Amino acid sequence: GQGIGKRSISLASTSMAAPPAGIFPPRNILIVNKLRTDPVVKAIDELLIHVRSTYPEVQIYAENRPDIPEGVQAWKPGPSSPDIDLVVTLGGDGTILHAASLFSKGAVPPVLSFSMGTLGFLLPFHIDDFVKSLEAVFLGKATILNRMRLTCTFYDKDGNRKGDDEDRWQVMNEIALHRGASPHLNTIDIFVDGQHLTEAVSDGIIVSTPTGSTAYSLSAGGPIVHPSLAALVLVPICPRSLSFRPLVFPRGSVIRLQIGGRSRASAGVSMDGRSSLVLDPGDSVTVHASPYPVPCINRSSIVEDGVGRGAGREEHVDGDGKQVGG
Amino acid sequence: GQGIGKRSISLASTSMAAPPAGIFPPRNILIVNKLRTDPVVKAIDELLIHVRSTYPEVQIYAENRPDIPEGVQAWKPGPSSPDIDLVVTLGGDGTILHAASLFSKGAVPPVLSFSMGTLGFLLPFHIDDFVKSLEAVFLGKATILNRMRLTCTFYDKDGNRKGDDEDRWQVMNEIALHRGASPHLNTIDIFVDGQHLTEAVSDGIIVSTPTGSTAYSLSAGGPIVHPSLAALVLVPICPRSLSFRPLVFPRGSVIRLQIGGRSRASAGVSMDGRSSLVLDPGDSVTVHASPYPVPCINRSSIVEDGVGRGAGREEHVDGDGKQVGG
Amino acid sequence: GQGIGKRSISLASTSMAAPPAGIFPPRNILIVNKLRTDPVVKAIDELLIHVRSTYPEVQIYAENRPDIPEGVQAWKPGPSSPDIDLVVTLGGDGTILHAASLFSKGAVPPVLSFSMGTLGFLLPFHIDDFVKSLEAVFLGKATILNRMRLTCTFYDKDGNRKGDDEDRWQVMNEIALHRGASPHLNTIDIFVDGQHLTEAVSDGIIVSTPTGSTAYSLSAGGPIVHPSLAALVLVPICPRSLSFRPLVFPRGSVIRLQIGGRSRASAGVSMDGRSSLVLDPGDSVTVHASPYPVPCINRSSIVEDGVGRGAGREEHVDGDGKQVGG
Amino acid sequence: GQGIGKRSISLASTSMAAPPAGIFPPRNILIVNKLRTDPVVKAIDELLIHVRSTYPEVQIYAENRPDIPEGVQAWKPGPSSPDIDLVVTLGGDGTILHAASLFSKGAVPPVLSFSMGTLGFLLPFHIDDFVKSLEAVFLGKATILNRMRLTCTFYDKDGNRKGDDEDRWQVMNEIALHRGASPHLNTIDIFVDGQHLTEAVSDGIIVSTPTGSTAYSLSAGGPIVHPSLAALVLVPICPRSLSFRPLVFPRGSVIRLQIGGRSRASAGVSMDGRSSLVLDPGDSVTVHASPYPVPCINRSSIVEDGVGRGAGREEHVDGDGKQVGG
Repeated sequence: GQGIGKRSISLASTSMAAPPAGIFPPRNILIVNKLRTDPVVKAIDELLIHVRSTYPEVQIYAENRPDIPEGVQAWKPGPSSPDIDLVVTLGGDGTILHAASLFSKGAVPPVLSFSMGTLGFLLPFHIDDFVKSLEAVFLGKATILNRMRLTCTFYDKDGNRKGDDEDRWQVMNEIALHRGASPHLNTIDIFVDGQHLTEAVSDGIIVSTPTGSTAYSLSAGGPIVHPSLAALVLVPICPRSLSFRPLVFPRGSVIRLQIGGRSRASAGVSMDGRSSLVLDPGDSVTVHASPYPVPCINRSSIVEDGVGRGAGREEHVDGDGKQVGG
Repeated sequence: GQGIGKRSISLASTSMAAPPAGIFPPRNILIVNKLRTDPVVKAIDELLIHVRSTYPEVQIYAENRPDIPEGVQAWKPGPSSPDIDLVVTLGGDGTILHAASLFSKGAVPPVLSFSMGTLGFLLPFHIDDFVKSLEAVFLGKATILNRMRLTCTFYDKDGNRKGDDEDRWQVMNEIALHRGASPHLNTIDIFVDGQHLTEAVSDGIIVSTPTGSTAYSLSAGGPIVHPSLAALVLVPICPRSLSFRPLVFPRGSVIRLQIGGRSRASAGVSMDGRSSLVLDPGDSVTVHASPYPVPCINRSSIVEDGVGRGAGREEHVDGDGKQVGG
Repeated sequence: GQGIGKRSISLASTSMAAPPAGIFPPRNILIVNKLRTDPVVKAIDELLIHVRSTYPEVQIYAENRPDIPEGVQAWKPGPSSPDIDLVVTLGGDGTILHAASLFSKGAVPPVLSFSMGTLGFLLPFHIDDFVKSLEAVFLGKATILNRMRLTCTFYDKDGNRKGDDEDRWQVMNEIALHRGASPHLNTIDIFVDGQHLTEAVSDGIIVSTPTGSTAYSLSAGGPIVHPSLAALVLVPICPRSLSFRPLVFPRGSVIRLQIGGRSRASAGVSMDGRSSLVLDPGDSVTVHASPYPVPCINRSSIVEDGVGRGAGREEHVDGDGKQVGG
Repeated sequence: GQGIGKRSISLASTSMAAPPAGIFPPRNILIVNKLRTDPVVKAIDELLIHVRSTYPEVQIYAENRPDIPEGVQAWKPGPSSPDIDLVVTLGGDGTILHAASLFSKGAVPPVLSFSMGTLGFLLPFHIDDFVKSLEAVFLGKATILNRMRLTCTFYDKDGNRKGDDEDRWQVMNEIALHRGASPHLNTIDIFVDGQHLTEAVSDGIIVSTPTGSTAYSLSAGGPIVHPSLAALVLVPICPRSLSFRPLVFPRGSVIRLQIGGRSRASAGVSMDGRSSLVLDPGDSVTVHASPYPVPCINRSSIVEDGVGRGAGREEHVDGDGKQVGG
């Protein structure tokens, strides 16, 4: 998806956030990349040299993969791993989504994202600006946009949790239920705050965050929601009823989607574009705002031309570390 | 407009509201009707008889019109008029909008609205239930949904206020700018919180409340916004650019619409469906959430079948008058 | 899908049609039903009794299934089977689609369709009217609406036909390509009359007939096309580009959809709601108007209340059999 | 409006057309321009010099305006004016629409249109190519796309023609009825081929040609219709009912729009973007395909890079003048 909001809406931080994880100035930095293309490899090399010389006290980590750069320590999610104070991503929006998914059980450290070329929807910095960007972060000049995530919990027809009890999903863009390859439409009962809203007959249902409102939700006909508004967007995919229009709910709403008992199709679930489980008739998922947003470091406070500069409503990452540190 | 949300979304009160005007239990009741059809005349007669016998201490007022019912005192907006504790409307949604407009300068008393037949979008009570409804109000059992209004202020091209300095408009559904009978499209610069968002070339622009999201805004392609979410919806009318999609902003946003200096068309302004002034190139209007919502008495707390019953998040109008009283 | 057109647009026959198969008055009638519910069994029984007593010279056939009614001859598609002069369907729209699919290789006999209750989109007769309807057909009073079909031919990446050489598909509603359960969007190159129109990145693409324009195509945002207009409707499903809008092409157009070589997703194909093959990157399908429409007997000439009565432009099934006979 | 179709759909001629007016090779050329900007003045000067030296037998005309170029003869529409064999326009799409309007009573000569810079939706030639373009026309190498027009006739509530009896309007893009500055919605009864289709409650109704399907109609949600398909597109503007979707009718359809007797708003009429009369409750307009399309000389046969080259279905303007001459 793409939209008017992608380049022109200024990003102001939300007030809903739990404080981000990590301390200030950052001690442990996690580098996240999905691809190992030449530009990415080169950018990581330069970044490592720069950080080691400029911020020698910093420990650098990367995901535990065969291609981990020399001198970088392996890191994986889990309680015994070192706490991360800053995540640096190199790549596109998908890399940011992946980084967020590494902290799917709790608070996410501030994320400083660099694109390798074209600017993504999530408004990263260009890699050529990495020296200036890191400096802003270490000097406490960066501001944060807390991007809302959704917590998704799955249940079988008897109301038992599906999957590991620890296993609640956090999504940054959207959760989508879709009939997939089934020739039949889904019948999905939608409940909001415990009340039955409607029985939707459609290809599927999207519940998106404001961040995700410019992605799949937009393609399906949804509105663009300012990222500083805490809201859930529910959009039907090719609904049979023309009067079933996109809906916007307040942050506190709990949306439950239950595959109708008489639905002829199961629903595949995809979260942030990754397929996961399948919901059979009677199964359900509840979706509500996550207590753990993704604190994205905001380009507006660093880029000097004022692109995306917020209207004085951004939280400041000041020297005493109240915002990103603490 | 009409939509899925009209009958099925439960109405929970918002937390943003200034306390409604009026005291509890109500002493001064204002009856508002637009038409004097036979059913309305008959209903007012029955209502008067019932109120006089059941709540003899109550004073009853009506707008100062030639057809004012016998024994009812004339009332008009203004600082020297008696304070109203409860507004009772008889008619459709237009009557509720009219009632709200009588309090366009400040706080609105709680509104108890009766439809004469078909149920309107604003979820009134049926007139046949008036005895039970009034009883609930006087017993302090009614709950309130504070419906957000928009404050609209107009400026000429030099930045001077257009119209009386006192004259800020409060709208309950939407403000719409439209080229009207002009053969040329409007060019409108849209600013949000002081930043230029886009230059829109279109038939016009709608800014609606959540309440208005099921009215004109919906016909123009906007989403349905839950009335308990405090948000502004901006929807272009027949925009030339297909990528200009409906936008949802947080309550705190200030939207400014300025007719482009090179716009070949002026823009007529209509607020809640009533035409008012015309904006010429260079003129502008600012729109933001009003501090004075309309406190609508909520059917959910009274109707026993639970239709529209909120999920425990409604403010209660309790005996000590904290909610509707003062 | 549903739409304004379903009940209110009058159905006039198209001029594009090959003459329907069959002779007049009908000698061989094929009964088609999908379900064997009690109402269907009862209706078939009554129909058999009526036809045998009223039109004793008629032979009655049914598909060769275990539950074939007593005294009815088994029939299956193929060159050695008796020619059918009239198809009678009992059921919903799906039953009409199924009946049409039995004649997927060539001309279709006139179809007289009865619904068992609710009226479908394809405007069948109610089963209670079967005596009057059959009489109209045998008296040559029925009129025909030739509903366009689409011929679909599949190719692999080397341009070789996929499947049996005889195997061209005829669809009455639509062909849809969809990414199915893939997490990735389809990239589909669209060619019209040999020219590259665009590269579509989307969930999928629908090509529908005017008949199908009130079904899936409508849910995806397509227009309603009058069934007497010979046209192909191309509608993207959740396209990434907001400027990719539904397109309407003339009857003579040849549309080719080719899965992009760099598409990360294959495309599942469904035709009239039935899933069939999968197209991998490089594979393609060509779609054009079939020479064999489905000649549907038109309710307008029989139902006396004038619902759906055409504006004098329908072909008449007259006594010398030019239209349905021949 | 803008759309995918504007640059990429190839333009093939339609078969519906009456033969264009004019003889071949052209004797009388009418130059049409709206503005007298420096580039236009300079282009006309160069064109005049070129035509006088290369085609000395040709007479050159222009509209009778104060700024008519020296040596050019004044021309105005009317039976006593010389017949025009070729119209040359210099300007944007509006200039082409204006040129077509000069022949609003009958056949239009072939139109060769030049843009002064950006290419318009109606696919003109760039002015820098005028030598080559004229040569193609005079050599009989140009092909024609007959763009359908709509004939609009207005009636009062008693069924009497409104306006001059001669006065039937020909529109090339669309006719739009709109409530204009009225605060009330229009109620419009829509009849197709004499049958009542629906009562539309909306801001207005558009009936567009395929040419106009990428203009206002597109902004209001209509599909893009290939210009070689003869069809009428009916699109509601902000309809109150979400199920009232765009409709496509065959060329032979007669659409009648009648302002409802109970409509609270009159409807302003604009045709090709020019406002004209007002229709009061009871008044109506009938719209059907005009017998006089606009024969636009097709860039595809001249531009050598093949942009827009039709798939072998274009009529050729051959030496014996059957197509543009005759």
